[in-house]
Amino acid sequence: MAFKISQIIAAIGPAKFEGDPNFTVEAPASLQDAGTQNITLFSNEKYAEQAAGTKAGCLLTAEKLAHLAASFKGNKIIVPHIQEAWAKLLGLWDRELSEQPWGIDPKAVVSRTVRLGKNVSIGAMTVIEDRVVIGDGAVIYPQCFLGRGVIIGADTVIYPQVVIRERCKIGSHVIIHPGVVIGADGYGYYPANGKHVKIPQIGTVEIGDDVEIGANVTIDRATMGATRIGSGTKIDNLVQIAHNVQIGKNCLIVAQSGIAGSSVLGDGVILGGQAGVGDHIEIAAGTIVGGGAGVIGDVKEKDVLWGTPARNHRQVMRLLALYYKLPEINEAVKKLLKTANLKEPAGKH
Amino acid sequence: MAFKISQIIAAIGPAKFEGDPNFTVEAPASLQDAGTQNITLFSNEKYAEQAAGTKAGCLLTAEKLAHLAASFKGNKIIVPHIQEAWAKLLGLWDRELSEQPWGIDPKAVVSRTVRLGKNVSIGAMTVIEDRVVIGDGAVIYPQCFLGRGVIIGADTVIYPQVVIRERCKIGSHVIIHPGVVIGADGYGYYPANGKHVKIPQIGTVEIGDDVEIGANVTIDRATMGATRIGSGTKIDNLVQIAHNVQIGKNCLIVAQSGIAGSSVLGDGVILGGQAGVGDHIEIAAGTIVGGGAGVIGDVKEKDVLWGTPARNHRQVMRLLALYYKLPEINEAVKKLLKTANLKEPAGKH
Amino acid sequence: MAFKISQIIAAIGPAKFEGDPNFTVEAPASLQDAGTQNITLFSNEKYAEQAAGTKAGCLLTAEKLAHLAASFKGNKIIVPHIQEAWAKLLGLWDRELSEQPWGIDPKAVVSRTVRLGKNVSIGAMTVIEDRVVIGDGAVIYPQCFLGRGVIIGADTVIYPQVVIRERCKIGSHVIIHPGVVIGADGYGYYPANGKHVKIPQIGTVEIGDDVEIGANVTIDRATMGATRIGSGTKIDNLVQIAHNVQIGKNCLIVAQSGIAGSSVLGDGVILGGQAGVGDHIEIAAGTIVGGGAGVIGDVKEKDVLWGTPARNHRQVMRLLALYYKLPEINEAVKKLLKTANLKEPAGKH
Repeated sequence: MAFKISQIIAAIGPAKFEGDPNFTVEAPASLQDAGTQNITLFSNEKYAEQAAGTKAGCLLTAEKLAHLAASFKGNKIIVPHIQEAWAKLLGLWDRELSEQPWGIDPKAVVSRTVRLGKNVSIGAMTVIEDRVVIGDGAVIYPQCFLGRGVIIGADTVIYPQVVIRERCKIGSHVIIHPGVVIGADGYGYYPANGKHVKIPQIGTVEIGDDVEIGANVTIDRATMGATRIGSGTKIDNLVQIAHNVQIGKNCLIVAQSGIAGSSVLGDGVILGGQAGVGDHIEIAAGTIVGGGAGVIGDVKEKDVLWGTPARNHRQVMRLLALYYKLPEINEAVKKLLKTANLKEPAGKH
Repeated sequence: MAFKISQIIAAIGPAKFEGDPNFTVEAPASLQDAGTQNITLFSNEKYAEQAAGTKAGCLLTAEKLAHLAASFKGNKIIVPHIQEAWAKLLGLWDRELSEQPWGIDPKAVVSRTVRLGKNVSIGAMTVIEDRVVIGDGAVIYPQCFLGRGVIIGADTVIYPQVVIRERCKIGSHVIIHPGVVIGADGYGYYPANGKHVKIPQIGTVEIGDDVEIGANVTIDRATMGATRIGSGTKIDNLVQIAHNVQIGKNCLIVAQSGIAGSSVLGDGVILGGQAGVGDHIEIAAGTIVGGGAGVIGDVKEKDVLWGTPARNHRQVMRLLALYYKLPEINEAVKKLLKTANLKEPAGKH
Repeated sequence: MAFKISQIIAAIGPAKFEGDPNFTVEAPASLQDAGTQNITLFSNEKYAEQAAGTKAGCLLTAEKLAHLAASFKGNKIIVPHIQEAWAKLLGLWDRELSEQPWGIDPKAVVSRTVRLGKNVSIGAMTVIEDRVVIGDGAVIYPQCFLGRGVIIGADTVIYPQVVIRERCKIGSHVIIHPGVVIGADGYGYYPANGKHVKIPQIGTVEIGDDVEIGANVTIDRATMGATRIGSGTKIDNLVQIAHNVQIGKNCLIVAQSGIAGSSVLGDGVILGGQAGVGDHIEIAAGTIVGGGAGVIGDVKEKDVLWGTPARNHRQVMRLLALYYKLPEINEAVKKLLKTANLKEPAGKH
């Protein structure tokens, strides 16, 4: 799978170029791993030294970094938007490497009442129950389960071993990675005689368009109504989203974070890895919650939060600096007590 | 799927009613979403305003909240136990929406040595190995795996893509959500020459009756003996339960929490979301561990804990208040040092 | 499944023995659970009392603990390396209990272009796509998915419902537990017009030899190049490993911990349960990160870390001791202010 530099430039958009446009590269590689058959990326000034010394056959860099790569004398592509250019370049190889649609595998189990769009692919051992509707161009890999009445939008890709329980709706251009469970019962009980009695969960899950959902994520169905994920939101692996949660558009929910029941995230919220959000909490649009933080109250205005309980990031850093100063504070207090001829107060643990 | 109010009242038990018992509702909905075709719930005084303004065709509320809903003039059901009544109401729709038992799917792979109770359902692509025993009325969805000698109790429901490895025992009336793995090897090694050598895990897992296990939960088999989950315990999504853990009856283990090897939780313990319990720890019955807390020592008496290392909740709150006061404490110490004409002690970071 | 004590001693290596070598035991059991038909383990002096009182038919203990078990008068095996001996003993039963290789199940779906070694087993409903290569003696349980071009080493065991996406490489003698997802797309986007645009993930995952991967773990494929797990590393359940992470040899990655993109762990690193490592971080070989800790910066030299942000464990304990002393420090400051006739400074929250 090789591309000429001229093909690459055609794919990535506006660029300056120094070198031989007929030079051919076989694969993208990192600055360190690249050889003459590779094209590589220099997008962070931290790696200027490696860029100067790379053995790559072609270097892609940004206009603002080009001066740092001046000593690299091979083929050089210089672009205004480096991330976009690199993503498009990777896309060239991705198209070659990707699975092509294969139609309906005879070993899939598809109910006769299912409505299929055009050019749908369904993999072996996938089970699709009554009245499911699948949009044009959708690709369902092997070993998935779609319960009764599930709706899948056009061009959505569902990787192997995904479970979507009954009546949940998935938008268009959605990507669902392996092991995801959508629409399991929410976690709801009422107490009676020292036991926990199950509250039926008759709601559903509704996923917008252009959403991506990472491997082994769980998104529970609502008690009633729907748990909702807004269009353009990207969810990383092993995230937990509880019943009746409402997530806005274009949010980033990083790996292993969890959102408890009925909480509401505005558009563009970012949750760092392993962050937690309590139940019935509202988080203002555009808020960033740092990794591992625990949000236990409403965030009424856009903010950057960290720690548990989560607070404004600058306050957290200021308090942390004083926390690290505790040995000195303690020494000073001891000295002052001595000077003032006072006893230390009795312990109160 | 519509019910007359008289049918609903018959299902939920003792209630006062104002309005037309022949009025028909199509579905439950929230105060905000409800229209005349819906029945809605008013169970929290925080939402009194929405209750007054709801467009629902019927309102269900509690005796002690009824005065706050006085301005709602439509059909009104007033009950003593609101959560129980609402759960029973949802159950009416749940029964209609639920999958009906379907018998043994011809595309299931069931060993001839399996012993099946009456009215068992087994879904397509499920694999059931030698000498498995399945109780009356149990429902096994598609694509599950039950290893040799697994025992499943009566009326237990196992959703798609659950793995239960060999010789594990599941009680009656248990619900296991998709993606759960029961009986994978515990995480045990001994060091030898700088490497980690596997300790065989020959034990099993034993799950009591009326247990519910959330999506993508992992419960490891014991090194020897059994990892045990007591009857009535409810486990949320993505929880990790290590080998030889013993969990009591009627516990609540909220999403993404984890319990390390050989720890013992008494009856009725509650672990909040993302909480962690170290290995070989005992937690007294009735203890509540807050979300994100890390328990690293025994909890000998029933307590409410939070933070890492987890401590009594009130102590944690008191210390946190002083932590937030560190800027003032630091200022005061500086002023005192100045007044006393003392230097600040050298840093000791 | 019973063994004579003489057979057990033959299996576990050098040992002293007191009693009847023809005595037969049926199963290993804990000190408390054991009866005359059981062999039990006494490996921790904490349990000396239980050892003295156990009803086991045979006791295995270490040379250095033997004096504490002097009052136990039954069959007694005394060994120099207790963990190794016990692991070998459990292995006797494990071999009896384990599934035997079964060949290629006719209900597996195996592409004609797959290359199979000798004595390979493949379970029902497993789907193996084009050009997969599987080494001698490998065992693939039912309902797995191996994408195009995946390579599996000799004697590797893959439990049910594992997904390995295209082109990933798995070493020899690897154990992969149920529900694991290897090679899902890394979590990478670039911002454009307030949206997140997917960066294609064209790399792979490479797993060394003798690696063990716990249930429902997720290991993402690299953007380019490979996410790598070194030989001998053992990963517990529900761990998240992001794209381009490089993990050294013989590491221990305990349950629910997570490692963000491009981070590098040296050989022998230990991550405790629920620990988190930020992106682009390097952790020196031999470093131990405590449970729940959050590593947000490079660890340049071998260290023992705890807390968030993670710091040297001793420093953390010292600061924590002062934190618990805050009530006294606060009291002392108040008293000093009073003595010095100064006002408390105004709040600065």
